[in-house]
Amino acid sequence: MISSRRRPLILVTNDDGIHAPGIRALTKAMDEVGDVVVVAPVDDQTAVGHSITLDEPLRVEAHNFGGDLSHVRALGITGTPCDCMKLALHELLHRKPDLAVSGINRGSNIAINVIYSGTISAATESSVNGIDSIAFSLDSKDSDADYSPAGSYAKVIAQKVLRSQLPRGVVLSANIPNLPHHEIRGIRVARQARSRWEEGFVGRTDPSNRSYYWYRGMMNVLDKGDDTDTGALEDGYVSVTPLQYDRTAHGCINVLKTWRWSEQLD
Amino acid sequence: MISSRRRPLILVTNDDGIHAPGIRALTKAMDEVGDVVVVAPVDDQTAVGHSITLDEPLRVEAHNFGGDLSHVRALGITGTPCDCMKLALHELLHRKPDLAVSGINRGSNIAINVIYSGTISAATESSVNGIDSIAFSLDSKDSDADYSPAGSYAKVIAQKVLRSQLPRGVVLSANIPNLPHHEIRGIRVARQARSRWEEGFVGRTDPSNRSYYWYRGMMNVLDKGDDTDTGALEDGYVSVTPLQYDRTAHGCINVLKTWRWSEQLD
Repeated sequence: MISSRRRPLILVTNDDGIHAPGIRALTKAMDEVGDVVVVAPVDDQTAVGHSITLDEPLRVEAHNFGGDLSHVRALGITGTPCDCMKLALHELLHRKPDLAVSGINRGSNIAINVIYSGTISAATESSVNGIDSIAFSLDSKDSDADYSPAGSYAKVIAQKVLRSQLPRGVVLSANIPNLPHHEIRGIRVARQARSRWEEGFVGRTDPSNRSYYWYRGMMNVLDKGDDTDTGALEDGYVSVTPLQYDRTAHGCINVLKTWRWSEQLD
Repeated sequence: MISSRRRPLILVTNDDGIHAPGIRALTKAMDEVGDVVVVAPVDDQTAVGHSITLDEPLRVEAHNFGGDLSHVRALGITGTPCDCMKLALHELLHRKPDLAVSGINRGSNIAINVIYSGTISAATESSVNGIDSIAFSLDSKDSDADYSPAGSYAKVIAQKVLRSQLPRGVVLSANIPNLPHHEIRGIRVARQARSRWEEGFVGRTDPSNRSYYWYRGMMNVLDKGDDTDTGALEDGYVSVTPLQYDRTAHGCINVLKTWRWSEQLD
């Protein structure tokens, strides 16, 4: 529970980079909830997952959002979303934040896409560090998409989390449909839909006659239902999915123990 | 269950790069189990997690391990471990492999490190594609570490998986202690230990008077016990941990549903 005596400190990051429109919308929404510090990648870091930078130094650059956000302290980092969280929490902030938020991502992070998402990895990183964390994604990759309905929902969800606190080891991922505010039907708690990428690669040959491949994949959703994140978005709801970072398949431990591991095979 | 009529097809990758000693040891071990194709990053991809390459083309280079492995088809890819799996499964292999293995990683992948590991992400990627998959890691970062005991255990574990098949949606992660073969006490099924990184950054100033940071972290294990991966390694056992890629915290769905989401806050 946050103290009523002070405004909550909110750490904001993303994976699309500090110049993306989504982080501006998220910063604006959080500015109405608490004191905001932005620590985000200088460059686009889409699909970097939980990558961290071990062999390169990280640089910090001051950033100013300008306009109605010129009072917000903002820092650009020459690294990944996870680097941003680590550096923010352990070097750049003067105290532990009450909340960490990531996004608003350009494009949804639903179903199997959760494992590739730098947006969700950033929120996971702060969650591992004991901070309530939320990832926000808008279901549109359009360059002229309107992030303000998503910003309004980000504000509501952030306030809920600040008041109720998340269970330990759980991070929230919220996906907002690309609809005008009055057409969004509300918030629905949902699980990840089962899915996989149907991969494709486009083969080319360069002027030196060397071949190369471009990645082209399409997500294939394998189940349907009101209780899935994809189903919620299709029905016009904001999906809110609790994600854990413990990947142990606990239900499988006893199955594996029945395998006779000491038996030698040839 | 594999057919007795043909040798299994085994896809090998890693995150330390195709020139690392661990992938040679793993290839050698798998060569005794089935027909091996190696598709691995050209460069070191440690700690890239589930990163994929979207905006750069991927190139494929023939590689020859030489010596007793000169007959093995091996390809180096200018991408991440996940890129390797995607390209192998959808472009480079003539049929779906019976097993995919990743490693042998230079250094253990236990506790919270699972989420950063490119080795485990590669095995996760093939698991998402419906292929039984195993990640192998040696608990040593020494450049002269002996990977042959780990290779022997990789062979045993691979054979077990080929005979018994893994539950759907589950990938195995095996960590091998850095001990001579006769000192390893066997295999133990274990969960991820709770842990977090105690971060540190070393601040420096470059000749142009610009500051930068080097990342320096140390893992802090927060629980103990026979049933954890860290405990297994400490006791001289190979740890085998079942991991799932569905990150939904299913046990938390009903808790979140009790939050009054339609209630507006200010």
